[in-house]
Amino acid sequence: MTDDAAPAEAPQKPAVAFWFDPASTYSHIAAQRVEAEADARGAVVRWRPFLLGPIFAANGWDTSPFNLFPAKGRNMWRDMERLCARHGLPPVTRTQRMPQHSVLAARTALALEGPARAAFCRGCYMAQFAKGKDIAEPESLAAVLSELGEDAEAVLARAQSVEVKAALRANVEEAMSLGIYGAPSFVTEDGELFWGNDRLEDALDWAAGRSVRP
Amino acid sequence: MTDDAAPAEAPQKPAVAFWFDPASTYSHIAAQRVEAEADARGAVVRWRPFLLGPIFAANGWDTSPFNLFPAKGRNMWRDMERLCARHGLPPVTRTQRMPQHSVLAARTALALEGPARAAFCRGCYMAQFAKGKDIAEPESLAAVLSELGEDAEAVLARAQSVEVKAALRANVEEAMSLGIYGAPSFVTEDGELFWGNDRLEDALDWAAGRSVRP
Repeated sequence: MTDDAAPAEAPQKPAVAFWFDPASTYSHIAAQRVEAEADARGAVVRWRPFLLGPIFAANGWDTSPFNLFPAKGRNMWRDMERLCARHGLPPVTRTQRMPQHSVLAARTALALEGPARAAFCRGCYMAQFAKGKDIAEPESLAAVLSELGEDAEAVLARAQSVEVKAALRANVEEAMSLGIYGAPSFVTEDGELFWGNDRLEDALDWAAGRSVRP
Repeated sequence: MTDDAAPAEAPQKPAVAFWFDPASTYSHIAAQRVEAEADARGAVVRWRPFLLGPIFAANGWDTSPFNLFPAKGRNMWRDMERLCARHGLPPVTRTQRMPQHSVLAARTALALEGPARAAFCRGCYMAQFAKGKDIAEPESLAAVLSELGEDAEAVLARAQSVEVKAALRANVEEAMSLGIYGAPSFVTEDGELFWGNDRLEDALDWAAGRSVRP
């Protein structure tokens, strides 16, 4: 090292992009646990909201596979009940509309940054899947924001800005270009794609260099 | 207990039905690990071959979702590579035909009982996904049977009997009536359905009374 070298910096933490649709049931479980699991591995989480609708449409589907294939949908809700019990989360509420319209919630997430975005997303999933709120309603999102001490009116106005709308479209396009086909998904900095809440630990292990690599 | 009571019997071990299609990629991983995980919990495994084809057809699909949805198919193979590395299994071979025709393999499994059936199924998955063999070819199955010390010719003849053909049809119907929509699936004696290799431990924990129940 020469005399004029920059001061030593703390080594950068490995990052994992956490891709989620605010209406996705399994993303709820992942959202509630991802930060603790990342902390345990010295990793950081980048919260990336997107929408499954355009990706399902590319498959020729006009709704969730949980609606198109009833046996799959039935078992998903039972599985959610079991997973909530296992992870100590409140019992899951089966939403009347499935999936709920998640465009406004995704835009609201994008109108926030860093820990505020993460906290909003966790609260939004709790509102939906623990309290049975409809996240398509601005009032539901305002309640989550207010509880977190945010200026709900200002955040919701920003969520409807041209910039945020464009940012969500860009996220959807990026998700598709990454090969994402479901939520949650996790993408490491070296481009490894993991699908599903069941792969949360594997994705973080990979990012932290703790995996046996094929 | 009265004098004429039956002699005390060893308590019956909890059983889990392991439902698999011999062409299913994730069932390969499950088949190689299920007995050790069951032993660790004092549980027993009932090996139940079935066919996904009729269930996919009921969804309006003429092939596997891994073919219908290319992004899903690409990630499945990469995920299989990672899982094989994690579980110490040989690197996965991507079969030319996907899925392979599995009717004869399923019938051959049904022509065997107990540990012989389990050993044949593990060998059949290894032939397919570690050695790249086509399990639609009777020669591939004969090689697996011979290596296990079975009379390959006799077993393959029994596999084509009216009784075994009917037994496989009955298994497919039972799988559909249980709400099974993918493979592997696990069903406990109290009717709890778990889908996927990722739920293998959960299903066995449930059977062994080790779960937090919702």
